[in-house]
Amino acid sequence: MQFDPHSAPRLPAGFTTAARNCGLKPKGDDLALFVSDVDAAAAAVFTRNQFPGAPIILGRETIRGGRLRAIVANSKFANVATGSHAVDDARRMAAAAAAEIGTSADRVLVSSTGVIGVRLPIEKIESGIRGMSADLQDDPLVGARGIMTTDTHPKALSTSVGGATITWVAKGSGMIEPNMATMLVYIFTDAALEAPALDFMLREAVDVSFNMLSVDGDTSTSDTCAILANGHAGAVDADAFRATLTEGSIRMAEMLARDGEGATRLVRVKVHAANSRDEARRIAKSVVNSPLIKTMAHGADPNVGRILMAVGKCFDVTLDPGRTDAWICGHAVLRNGQRVDFDESEIRSALAGDTVDIEISIGVGAGEATAFGCDLTSGYIEENAAYYSS
Amino acid sequence: MQFDPHSAPRLPAGFTTAARNCGLKPKGDDLALFVSDVDAAAAAVFTRNQFPGAPIILGRETIRGGRLRAIVANSKFANVATGSHAVDDARRMAAAAAAEIGTSADRVLVSSTGVIGVRLPIEKIESGIRGMSADLQDDPLVGARGIMTTDTHPKALSTSVGGATITWVAKGSGMIEPNMATMLVYIFTDAALEAPALDFMLREAVDVSFNMLSVDGDTSTSDTCAILANGHAGAVDADAFRATLTEGSIRMAEMLARDGEGATRLVRVKVHAANSRDEARRIAKSVVNSPLIKTMAHGADPNVGRILMAVGKCFDVTLDPGRTDAWICGHAVLRNGQRVDFDESEIRSALAGDTVDIEISIGVGAGEATAFGCDLTSGYIEENAAYYSS
Repeated sequence: MQFDPHSAPRLPAGFTTAARNCGLKPKGDDLALFVSDVDAAAAAVFTRNQFPGAPIILGRETIRGGRLRAIVANSKFANVATGSHAVDDARRMAAAAAAEIGTSADRVLVSSTGVIGVRLPIEKIESGIRGMSADLQDDPLVGARGIMTTDTHPKALSTSVGGATITWVAKGSGMIEPNMATMLVYIFTDAALEAPALDFMLREAVDVSFNMLSVDGDTSTSDTCAILANGHAGAVDADAFRATLTEGSIRMAEMLARDGEGATRLVRVKVHAANSRDEARRIAKSVVNSPLIKTMAHGADPNVGRILMAVGKCFDVTLDPGRTDAWICGHAVLRNGQRVDFDESEIRSALAGDTVDIEISIGVGAGEATAFGCDLTSGYIEENAAYYSS
Repeated sequence: MQFDPHSAPRLPAGFTTAARNCGLKPKGDDLALFVSDVDAAAAAVFTRNQFPGAPIILGRETIRGGRLRAIVANSKFANVATGSHAVDDARRMAAAAAAEIGTSADRVLVSSTGVIGVRLPIEKIESGIRGMSADLQDDPLVGARGIMTTDTHPKALSTSVGGATITWVAKGSGMIEPNMATMLVYIFTDAALEAPALDFMLREAVDVSFNMLSVDGDTSTSDTCAILANGHAGAVDADAFRATLTEGSIRMAEMLARDGEGATRLVRVKVHAANSRDEARRIAKSVVNSPLIKTMAHGADPNVGRILMAVGKCFDVTLDPGRTDAWICGHAVLRNGQRVDFDESEIRSALAGDTVDIEISIGVGAGEATAFGCDLTSGYIEENAAYYSS
């Protein structure tokens, strides 16, 4: 099916957002609030990092209820490794947002992204939240701005499914002064869907989109992806919703990859004919995360050896060198494990575009997967080596 | 025990080496020969990349005999993905070296390192090998020069065990025009040891040295580590030999890490109190390979959050955030999973040295491991993005 994004993103019926500077950052919005005017069915997935931030610990508890009225998020401080009051601070943040919009704290999902090991200035956040409901409006880019860190632009995307709207609001894998990348993705829809169905569809979509996204292979302690469905648009065709949710999530993953730290282009690695879907995923991730593939994408050099190497270093998948084929931007570069004659200048031109597509056929089965990443540039080094952590 | 390297490396009794330019590179040696004057007991380990080069395929066959007279190695072309004649070309290289020194081809180990997918100019190599025996001498740095690629200096190391000598000759993880990193390590000793014992000791040493080394997480198709023992110095204490072999291999791994692509410093990550040795190894590798740890080491910024993140992203090891401690260059930065107050300027000074030591206590068991790597700099990007593959 054709994914057809709206020309300008807008929040679905009943959803609003506001953002402001509450004094965490010297300038720019550092606090965002997303509100549904009624309780919304909700689902969320969180980072698998074993040292999760306090908002993740609280969020796992909150989402069990399957209903949310709001999301409140701050940037600049991650509320990770800050001691025994960390979860209490997250709860205070939820309570402040709940009081502001007139709901209970267990209906508010909290995110914090930023420096680790510094206690959240919770009083500033509580003051900041007060009065925010007066600023609520329907442009998702406003809220997207409030959660930006090193993202170069706010990210939102809307589309329609039947009479309903789905809107993605996200921040990408950027460093924060210069702590680790954090991905926050909030998905809002006015379609009527129950929490268990949302949970299933969200996991399905995340599995092929955000879980296949990597800027640098480093997993944040704060990654969160949540979906809220408030039902204002009524029931929609479930299959159409699922397909659109997945497709839009892939689009957003691509937006995030393209705006990775120092990135100049999106790298998409599509693997097919692997022994299984799981093996295809591992191979695609190995290739998209390989520093030599990432620098190749930056250097715009069609280097076949690096593709072979990055596939071959997956020690525990089924491979047959004699059956491996590869294409760069649609041009065959490897057939049956051997370099084919190709016009280097032609491929180099294709590589100079804003998307590098690498396709690899493993030739041993029917497993398929696509991974999303970006090139590795000196911009990444500068951004991550030059700053201090506090 | 104290590892005491000789001030100038030399080959053990009965070993000699020669190098020359045979026309593969425009200048500089591209061909090296290492010879024992008698058959030596031998063992070797090779890359686990599933697309190994032809010399690896042949080498696995050759080493089964447990005896070697010589190693012949070329740089510039890797003899990988070059088609059906690849292994034949490797055999021709072994045969040429065997004819030159008067042995059989199955006593010659072959290595090739360089660009992938281009057929080996085997005639040039055969011509180059002819007459090399006249140049054989005992300075290991001569042979080390012949196998250099983007290494900034030739690498050799000697020490004594009883009356015997052990000498390591290696090339590091550098890019070649600009294909993948290849590690070649040749170890020569005049101690009398049988092949099965050598094999055991080599695997033991490699396990804690070269197998714990990573410049960029990309596994070459040509990695080789071989040991030759010609017995000239007679029997040695086996335990002392084992310990010295391991210690010297760790030193050589450190030399290779320190000279990684674009590296300005060695990064050593020591993990202890993990649930098992295997888990300690996985955690140490995760930390040493993390781009955010590597850029931190380059930026000389004591960033505690990155350490927590890189440990926590090991999803399948036993961790307890409340028991995790960490030190940077001996200064405590994390205790019981929380950032401790530390003097940043003090740690920043320590980090500005040529070695960054990160020590992490997991607090759940007795598993220990140390991994060796280097910082990530724009030098790495330049070296790997700017060149063409052919």
